[in-house]
Amino acid sequence: MLTVHHLGLSQSERIVWLCEELELEYELRRYERLDGKGLAPPEYKLLHPMGTAPVITDGDLVLAESGAICEYICRRYGEGKLVPAPDSPDLAGHLFWFHWCNGTFMAALMAQSVLKLAKAEPGNKGAAYLDDRIETAWHMIEGRLNEARFFGGSDLTTADIMMVFSLTTGRIFRGTSIEAYPAVQRYLADIGQRPAYQRAMAKAEPGFRPGLT
Amino acid sequence: MLTVHHLGLSQSERIVWLCEELELEYELRRYERLDGKGLAPPEYKLLHPMGTAPVITDGDLVLAESGAICEYICRRYGEGKLVPAPDSPDLAGHLFWFHWCNGTFMAALMAQSVLKLAKAEPGNKGAAYLDDRIETAWHMIEGRLNEARFFGGSDLTTADIMMVFSLTTGRIFRGTSIEAYPAVQRYLADIGQRPAYQRAMAKAEPGFRPGLT
Repeated sequence: MLTVHHLGLSQSERIVWLCEELELEYELRRYERLDGKGLAPPEYKLLHPMGTAPVITDGDLVLAESGAICEYICRRYGEGKLVPAPDSPDLAGHLFWFHWCNGTFMAALMAQSVLKLAKAEPGNKGAAYLDDRIETAWHMIEGRLNEARFFGGSDLTTADIMMVFSLTTGRIFRGTSIEAYPAVQRYLADIGQRPAYQRAMAKAEPGFRPGLT
Repeated sequence: MLTVHHLGLSQSERIVWLCEELELEYELRRYERLDGKGLAPPEYKLLHPMGTAPVITDGDLVLAESGAICEYICRRYGEGKLVPAPDSPDLAGHLFWFHWCNGTFMAALMAQSVLKLAKAEPGNKGAAYLDDRIETAWHMIEGRLNEARFFGGSDLTTADIMMVFSLTTGRIFRGTSIEAYPAVQRYLADIGQRPAYQRAMAKAEPGFRPGLT
C-alpha cells in the first residue's frame, strides 16, 4: 500500500495532489510541525536519513525528494498520465519546469531563508545575487503562463504538481505577493477549480487556504 | 543537430559525458568563464533567460537545467539506456539520487556559496543549518556507495551523470576533501576508467584533472 507521509505546510502536499489527480488508492499520514509552523517533528525526521518532506513508503521502500516521488509514482502507477509522450512537443517544456522548480527556483528560495537565519548585513553581495536570480525566476514564470495554459504545456503534468506548491503554500509561508503577475493569478484560479486539487488540499491542509489568489 | 553549450568548469560537463556514454553525434561549443574561473561570459548568459549552465540546443529548442536535459536526451535519443526500466528494483534508488543531486545536495552547496558572498558572522544559524545538512548528505553518499556500485544501482544511470560532477569538478572548485570517504574514492576511480568519461573530460576540460581522487 502506497503511504504518503505529509508534513503540514510542506512540499509533501504535492504528493497528495498527485495521488488525487491519478485517482490512486493511498494512505495519508499527516504530521504536525512543532508549534504549528516550526521544524518537522522527530518522528517525521526519522522516516528518511535526509529528514526532509516529502516521504512516501511503498512496501519496504522509503523514498524522499519531490521529483523522485513524482516520477516513481507516475512510472509505477500512472499509466502514462501527467507526463507528455516522448514525441510530444510539450516534452522539453514539461521537463524544464519539472526539474527547474526544485533544482533552481526552490534552491534560490532556500538560500534566501538561510541568509535570513544568518542575519547577514542588508545589502550584502549574497542577497543581491539571490534577489536578481529570484526576480528573473518570477519573470520567467509569468512568461511561461502567458504562453501556455500549464507549466507542462497544454495539459497538466508533474511540472505543475511541482510548481503549484511553490506558488501557493510556499509563497504564503514566505509572504510573497503575486499582485504584479496576472498570468500567475489566472493559473492559480484555474488550478483551484480542479476537483483533485480541492480534494487534496481538504485532506492535506484542512482549514488552510493555500494562496490561490 | 544536438549542440551542447559547455561553460568551462560547470555542471554542463555532465551533458558532454552523457552524450559520450550514449555515443550520440553532437556538436560541442565551449565557453570560457571570465578571468578563467569567474562568471559566465555574456554570450553564455544570453543563451537562456536563466543564464545558467548547462544549455543545449536541438533545432529550435533551447533547453536549460541539468536534470531536464538528461531526461530529454535519454527520452529522445537514449533508446532506453542509462535509465532503469519501470519494473527494475533499481528504479526508486536511481530516481532518488537523480533528483536529490540538484534538488537538495547542490541546493545546499549553492546556499553555502551565497552565505560566503554575504560575509555573515562565523557561527551564525544559517551556516550551522547548512553544515549539518551537508554533513548528512556526505554520509548518505558514502552509505549509498557502500551498498551499490553506482548511484543508479547495479548499472550506471543518469543519477551518476548528475552526481559525478558534484563529487569531482564541483568539489575541486570548493576545495572539499574526500579523504574520509573510501567508498567515494573507489567509485570515482572506477568512473575515471570509463572510456566515455575520459573522452568527455578530454573534450570538455582539456588539461584539467577533474578530481577523481
